[in-house]
Amino acid sequence: MGDAPSERRTSPPTMTHTRKDIKLDLERHERLGFDEAVFCSAKTTAHLTHILDQVAGRQLRLLLTRLSNQQLNELPEAHRTRIDYEPISRTGYFGVPHDLVGEPRVAVIAAGTSDVYVSREAARTLRYYGQPNVEITDVGVAGLWRLLERVDEIRRMPVVIAVAGMDAALPTVIGGLVPSVVIGVPTSVGYGVASGGESALRAMLASCAPGLVVMNIDNGYGAACAALRILRAIGST
Amino acid sequence: MGDAPSERRTSPPTMTHTRKDIKLDLERHERLGFDEAVFCSAKTTAHLTHILDQVAGRQLRLLLTRLSNQQLNELPEAHRTRIDYEPISRTGYFGVPHDLVGEPRVAVIAAGTSDVYVSREAARTLRYYGQPNVEITDVGVAGLWRLLERVDEIRRMPVVIAVAGMDAALPTVIGGLVPSVVIGVPTSVGYGVASGGESALRAMLASCAPGLVVMNIDNGYGAACAALRILRAIGST
Amino acid sequence: MGDAPSERRTSPPTMTHTRKDIKLDLERHERLGFDEAVFCSAKTTAHLTHILDQVAGRQLRLLLTRLSNQQLNELPEAHRTRIDYEPISRTGYFGVPHDLVGEPRVAVIAAGTSDVYVSREAARTLRYYGQPNVEITDVGVAGLWRLLERVDEIRRMPVVIAVAGMDAALPTVIGGLVPSVVIGVPTSVGYGVASGGESALRAMLASCAPGLVVMNIDNGYGAACAALRILRAIGST
Amino acid sequence: MGDAPSERRTSPPTMTHTRKDIKLDLERHERLGFDEAVFCSAKTTAHLTHILDQVAGRQLRLLLTRLSNQQLNELPEAHRTRIDYEPISRTGYFGVPHDLVGEPRVAVIAAGTSDVYVSREAARTLRYYGQPNVEITDVGVAGLWRLLERVDEIRRMPVVIAVAGMDAALPTVIGGLVPSVVIGVPTSVGYGVASGGESALRAMLASCAPGLVVMNIDNGYGAACAALRILRAIGST
Amino acid sequence: MGDAPSERRTSPPTMTHTRKDIKLDLERHERLGFDEAVFCSAKTTAHLTHILDQVAGRQLRLLLTRLSNQQLNELPEAHRTRIDYEPISRTGYFGVPHDLVGEPRVAVIAAGTSDVYVSREAARTLRYYGQPNVEITDVGVAGLWRLLERVDEIRRMPVVIAVAGMDAALPTVIGGLVPSVVIGVPTSVGYGVASGGESALRAMLASCAPGLVVMNIDNGYGAACAALRILRAIGST
Amino acid sequence: MGDAPSERRTSPPTMTHTRKDIKLDLERHERLGFDEAVFCSAKTTAHLTHILDQVAGRQLRLLLTRLSNQQLNELPEAHRTRIDYEPISRTGYFGVPHDLVGEPRVAVIAAGTSDVYVSREAARTLRYYGQPNVEITDVGVAGLWRLLERVDEIRRMPVVIAVAGMDAALPTVIGGLVPSVVIGVPTSVGYGVASGGESALRAMLASCAPGLVVMNIDNGYGAACAALRILRAIGST
Amino acid sequence: MGDAPSERRTSPPTMTHTRKDIKLDLERHERLGFDEAVFCSAKTTAHLTHILDQVAGRQLRLLLTRLSNQQLNELPEAHRTRIDYEPISRTGYFGVPHDLVGEPRVAVIAAGTSDVYVSREAARTLRYYGQPNVEITDVGVAGLWRLLERVDEIRRMPVVIAVAGMDAALPTVIGGLVPSVVIGVPTSVGYGVASGGESALRAMLASCAPGLVVMNIDNGYGAACAALRILRAIGST
Amino acid sequence: MGDAPSERRTSPPTMTHTRKDIKLDLERHERLGFDEAVFCSAKTTAHLTHILDQVAGRQLRLLLTRLSNQQLNELPEAHRTRIDYEPISRTGYFGVPHDLVGEPRVAVIAAGTSDVYVSREAARTLRYYGQPNVEITDVGVAGLWRLLERVDEIRRMPVVIAVAGMDAALPTVIGGLVPSVVIGVPTSVGYGVASGGESALRAMLASCAPGLVVMNIDNGYGAACAALRILRAIGST
Repeated sequence: MGDAPSERRTSPPTMTHTRKDIKLDLERHERLGFDEAVFCSAKTTAHLTHILDQVAGRQLRLLLTRLSNQQLNELPEAHRTRIDYEPISRTGYFGVPHDLVGEPRVAVIAAGTSDVYVSREAARTLRYYGQPNVEITDVGVAGLWRLLERVDEIRRMPVVIAVAGMDAALPTVIGGLVPSVVIGVPTSVGYGVASGGESALRAMLASCAPGLVVMNIDNGYGAACAALRILRAIGST
Repeated sequence: MGDAPSERRTSPPTMTHTRKDIKLDLERHERLGFDEAVFCSAKTTAHLTHILDQVAGRQLRLLLTRLSNQQLNELPEAHRTRIDYEPISRTGYFGVPHDLVGEPRVAVIAAGTSDVYVSREAARTLRYYGQPNVEITDVGVAGLWRLLERVDEIRRMPVVIAVAGMDAALPTVIGGLVPSVVIGVPTSVGYGVASGGESALRAMLASCAPGLVVMNIDNGYGAACAALRILRAIGST
Repeated sequence: MGDAPSERRTSPPTMTHTRKDIKLDLERHERLGFDEAVFCSAKTTAHLTHILDQVAGRQLRLLLTRLSNQQLNELPEAHRTRIDYEPISRTGYFGVPHDLVGEPRVAVIAAGTSDVYVSREAARTLRYYGQPNVEITDVGVAGLWRLLERVDEIRRMPVVIAVAGMDAALPTVIGGLVPSVVIGVPTSVGYGVASGGESALRAMLASCAPGLVVMNIDNGYGAACAALRILRAIGST
Repeated sequence: MGDAPSERRTSPPTMTHTRKDIKLDLERHERLGFDEAVFCSAKTTAHLTHILDQVAGRQLRLLLTRLSNQQLNELPEAHRTRIDYEPISRTGYFGVPHDLVGEPRVAVIAAGTSDVYVSREAARTLRYYGQPNVEITDVGVAGLWRLLERVDEIRRMPVVIAVAGMDAALPTVIGGLVPSVVIGVPTSVGYGVASGGESALRAMLASCAPGLVVMNIDNGYGAACAALRILRAIGST
Repeated sequence: MGDAPSERRTSPPTMTHTRKDIKLDLERHERLGFDEAVFCSAKTTAHLTHILDQVAGRQLRLLLTRLSNQQLNELPEAHRTRIDYEPISRTGYFGVPHDLVGEPRVAVIAAGTSDVYVSREAARTLRYYGQPNVEITDVGVAGLWRLLERVDEIRRMPVVIAVAGMDAALPTVIGGLVPSVVIGVPTSVGYGVASGGESALRAMLASCAPGLVVMNIDNGYGAACAALRILRAIGST
Repeated sequence: MGDAPSERRTSPPTMTHTRKDIKLDLERHERLGFDEAVFCSAKTTAHLTHILDQVAGRQLRLLLTRLSNQQLNELPEAHRTRIDYEPISRTGYFGVPHDLVGEPRVAVIAAGTSDVYVSREAARTLRYYGQPNVEITDVGVAGLWRLLERVDEIRRMPVVIAVAGMDAALPTVIGGLVPSVVIGVPTSVGYGVASGGESALRAMLASCAPGLVVMNIDNGYGAACAALRILRAIGST
Repeated sequence: MGDAPSERRTSPPTMTHTRKDIKLDLERHERLGFDEAVFCSAKTTAHLTHILDQVAGRQLRLLLTRLSNQQLNELPEAHRTRIDYEPISRTGYFGVPHDLVGEPRVAVIAAGTSDVYVSREAARTLRYYGQPNVEITDVGVAGLWRLLERVDEIRRMPVVIAVAGMDAALPTVIGGLVPSVVIGVPTSVGYGVASGGESALRAMLASCAPGLVVMNIDNGYGAACAALRILRAIGST
Repeated sequence: MGDAPSERRTSPPTMTHTRKDIKLDLERHERLGFDEAVFCSAKTTAHLTHILDQVAGRQLRLLLTRLSNQQLNELPEAHRTRIDYEPISRTGYFGVPHDLVGEPRVAVIAAGTSDVYVSREAARTLRYYGQPNVEITDVGVAGLWRLLERVDEIRRMPVVIAVAGMDAALPTVIGGLVPSVVIGVPTSVGYGVASGGESALRAMLASCAPGLVVMNIDNGYGAACAALRILRAIGST
């Protein structure tokens, strides 16, 4: 405690989250090949509104990830009605997404129904950037024949995003069956030792399938970005 | 952000969790000897309703695990009233369970009252599949004589499911007293170092009792399935 | 430091590991159905010699686990030549093992060659107790067809011991393919996140295959004991 | 202990690691696009010799990883002299590697000199499979300008393998500078919190750079396999 | 349970958190050079009110950290209106802060917008103690040029507080670019492996930048105190 | 799912937590020297009511720990009014506690105000069992002279319970200053690395003060029981 | 690297561990009731010799812990022959220990033979300070009757040191059987999840036995010091 | 394995660690204010020799850290004799260190004798860069008065490096006694929970002393660099 404060100031210098805190990365597209997305998880309504104001003013589009239903509902109506929202993945397209180009080249596979919140985020991100893709669900390896029925379909895709929680054996099995690039995404589904996705993550990283690459837990968005980098590398050569 | 989005689409392509995301494993019974169960924990009301619609339509039964009171109450009344619900274990029988067959052959033992939410899940799962069993509670080893009084009763069962949290010494002591198959199930009960069940799990895995087998934390359902596999192995030989 | 020690004692009371420290569990057989085994890992030559003296004097047999080559070579010749030693599993039979009884009823499966040190320990323990078994190696799920070729053979066994390190997907896949009791044993093989077997252990505990039971890392001996408990439960009913 | 063992058998049934334990995956090439490699780390001389006998007999080539100097020296001379060994990466080519094809398309970057044991493993694996590549070393971000001097060179490669230990910031910085596919490989270099590579691994997985993919700690071989999957996906389209 | 309790007491000796539990450290200023601050996080309204009563009675000032909006609103109005509150950092000045002295000598840098809750706490603490400072936001290393534009400005400050979550590469890069004292503060922002700030903390501690010092996760207040110690050490020599 | 369930049963066999699940340890007093206490944390109102019914019926007393305000308020009024409740420690005396006997022989010391929820639990437990004690608060070692002023008072107590969170240095310092038995209790206070009490626990276990003994995180009740065991050992000799 | 070093100095200022680094705590006895002991584990021969020189010069006694056989053999003969060494506990008495006083008042119990290295350290420390004690070995709870045979003997001791590794259930069972002070000491014995003693430690801390106190892993010396504090507290009242 | 390797090449292209792998940071001095140091821990003799050749050729000086005795002895004699080596800290000065300038301004404090390997590294690094300093040893807080005797001396230094392992309470106590900048360095000394320094690290990060800054475990070199940054910040203003 200080020693002799005078009286109370009349206009307190209370600071708030102002424009200068937010700096959208408008040059990212030319540098990396895809626009900035907004990770909404810890952002306030004021925060999100300010971002959408900027984007709307410039006639731009924007991908919103981890946007909760509650966050969506608290947005000003003018913004909310411009958002194409998908509740399982909690993704939103602000403005019209990029045009779809070409045939599907990515398989987005979820081991179980409860992993779809992640695989759908990947699929929606790919769709936003104009990349057609195929979603396959409920092919966990504890019921192996469900996967085997789809292997030929999977093998035709140059990139496979394999989403799984708990024991996370799916990407390993796929990685041993097809020569495609396999991107493993662990999910935080489960309880006990599985909870949080740490076990699934470690199982994928320790996989015996050669060349399996791995994303952070629940990072469907990142997996889609990785797929886009790969497909653009293909396109650029 | 993209560069030149056109105007807003009139009918947004919002996706929802549709039928194709859910694929019940109807052949599991003949393959593994028991039907599929539905782990309700992370599922929405829509999700659960869709599953029950399918089952009801085919005149099937279903075991529901980790079904919260709130989830139960949000189900359509037609489904809700068909469910035999037990709140401590959070299990529900949709339709009539399998007929009970034979004498009790499994002892389901909980170290303390606060472990019953797991032991009851095991007992209810066994009951669903028609397997009679004996529940024994409050025989933790910090009050050893409570266990010793019941040892003869326990020894008569070919399979023992021993549920315990915190120090989890119960399965070790039982495993040294009886020749039965002992399945240890750690619980997430407790606080501080015990919290989450990790200590109980590790203590069971490190047990000095030869041949003690272990399940994931709180996995009463899995312990019952293991017991069923064992009893069927017995039956098949 | 004390204040005024007198002169040096002539005969120092140096203690050593004496007989009274070692108490073999000779009644275990009737209580649990199998004899005591000696875990040699942290024991000195003097220690082991003392144990073998006791056993030899009573004309008994003994199973030795985690007996290193060096430990074996440092034993007195009279003991060493009575030991049937297998170097990969580091197991030794002191005296003649129990007579083999009946047909093989346990499949002992190792995902890869480097997991054999554990699966062989299980197989040797089973053999010691007179239980015929079938060893199957190099059927890791990253090369799935190798496993699928053997599934029918595996399904005929009431008990399956599935040993795997790294991603440890093998027991999950088997547990979804056959109705037998599946005992998962994680191994400490690997490096990085896999190292120590913690990832394999967690993947097995979190398995989606219903009723999969799990042992401590590298505990092939324990898996065999569990199999014996199961087979005796079968026999006793 | 058993009750009445008879006398010592004359020919002990000591088992050793025999042929049947080792099953080389000769069909992997057509299935996945690259041959099997042998991870030598936990293998004995007898083990390795047996594998090389098989390969030599069929006039095949083989990639050996984690082959220590000591292991190399203990091999039979006929085998040892056929191995092109590189001590930093501990890799060996048994037989002549695949012919180099095309221009370099992979940049293999090590943050510091002490990370070269991993980046060289990746480079040597790529070379073995005939893929030219460019090695860049000592461009850690604590001395940022060293990296910035090389950015244009890096950007020309469709695939970048970025190897780093400790804070592991290198892949994040590269992933924000170039649109290529960036594969992060954490190393186990360092001490204290860095030791074992766990910190580096987590920092890479948590990276802010969109689409960065990650391998297990020290897994240079796996990173090369991922790069090959990517380049073949490019080639196949 | 005891054996023979008599009847119920009329006035129960219920204790509450009374004055004697709270002992403000009024001499800290002369001993350490700055007054005590109150960490409000786990404190009740009664608790906080009691503290503010004491301070108000002595005409002192006080810094409040981790003061939630709800806690603020539950304070008596007389106290609440004397508090200059900043919601992002959750800091409050009770009474007038120390007079600003001299030029800015600390740069407070946040890697991303979502790290501002911590950097603002540092900036507000510095301001409270009369230390002018410069806040810089959204200069994460995944978009490197944003940082490079500000390097000259940063280099002019003798002390730099670098706040970052997730991969936490920012302090390392700054520590390699400027000779100032760099204080790294990890944030608990993120999900999956990043969650809780443990990964960011470890990455900073393992940094390759020589002489980088680190604070506990989210400890913006502590970083400001460290900066004040440094600047006073400068002043005292 | 089963194959042919018949119609819905009229009276579902829904089980609830019944009497047989709860078995109070009424003989504990003569065996261990203190009665059973009820850890209320995970118990339902029905649960607690059932226990209190039993105790009230037998005219016994009972110590309730971790009893939340909400749990208290949901109890039947007849029970609630018999409880002497202390909100900080969340302890309740059901019935009149044991008579106080003798002089204070335990010092219960909390490093900071926010640790009082644990030290008060210890003090209240001691009081319940009739053991007078002295509470000392806000003597954390970051303000060392506060502790030094009280050292003589502390030294007069044969048993010292030292409660501290975060760095948990208090028990070490006390253990080096007085010859009393020092029982360290870590608290879960704090954030970042401190959160959960794991750091405080480990610091106490690793203490350089010889003979410091440690309890689980937040276990004030256990520390009091340990003190009682010690004082009774003294009394019995 | 600096800019212009001159020539090589003739007498390098190489420092070594000199007297001033070592400051024996000679007043500890009057302050805490027992002398300083020397933890030899990381000390060099020079280090130890210097300490013993000091002690020998003053005609004092000293307890040496964690003194390896190799360290012992490298000491100067004059010192070595004055040491009464016990190899299992790796303890040495330099000079004559304190005179034994009174009857045994401490039971030192080891769950298994492989835990004796810790229980013996406790017993030897007690002996050094003149405290008679009773060692009991091989009473692990997996063979419960071995413990039950000794319970009456144990109950007569006011203090019990219970040493156990792996599942560490022994102290919990004892703490529920006798009213004595029970000090649990986890050992680092075991493999897999048990390895390092972390599981044993956590199981003891989470024990259901009220008032069980715990030491660091393998800290037999500390347990003895705790016992001495307790017995002196008894003596002083 | 490949398909048709030709014959063995006569001159294998075995690569070794060549010049291009090593890039000394010669401009670091002007950028950061101190020269590059070489962390020798994982470097081979060839590696170190190559570095010293470069430095010797340019008439430069160099600081070597973590240089083992064995590494030193394997260097070419011409290099070895130019190194002023200190074995406890494992540091070497190649060439003459910077001239000492001014009075001591850093106190380097070690809690115990076994922490000196780290504090000496800090002291030697400071000496190398010409910064006089004062070493203080054996002032751990378990014997508090040893520290209190030195407090005035410590308070005169603007920077304090406080090195401690195990409970690591020393920096907290110092940070509450003096207004200097306190840099905590945890050491990896100890066993059980202390082992590896993780507990000490966490205790320091969670310290209650405001403004305590922390380094990686055992990082005495880094602490010295931080001190130098601080002292230069002082000098530059």
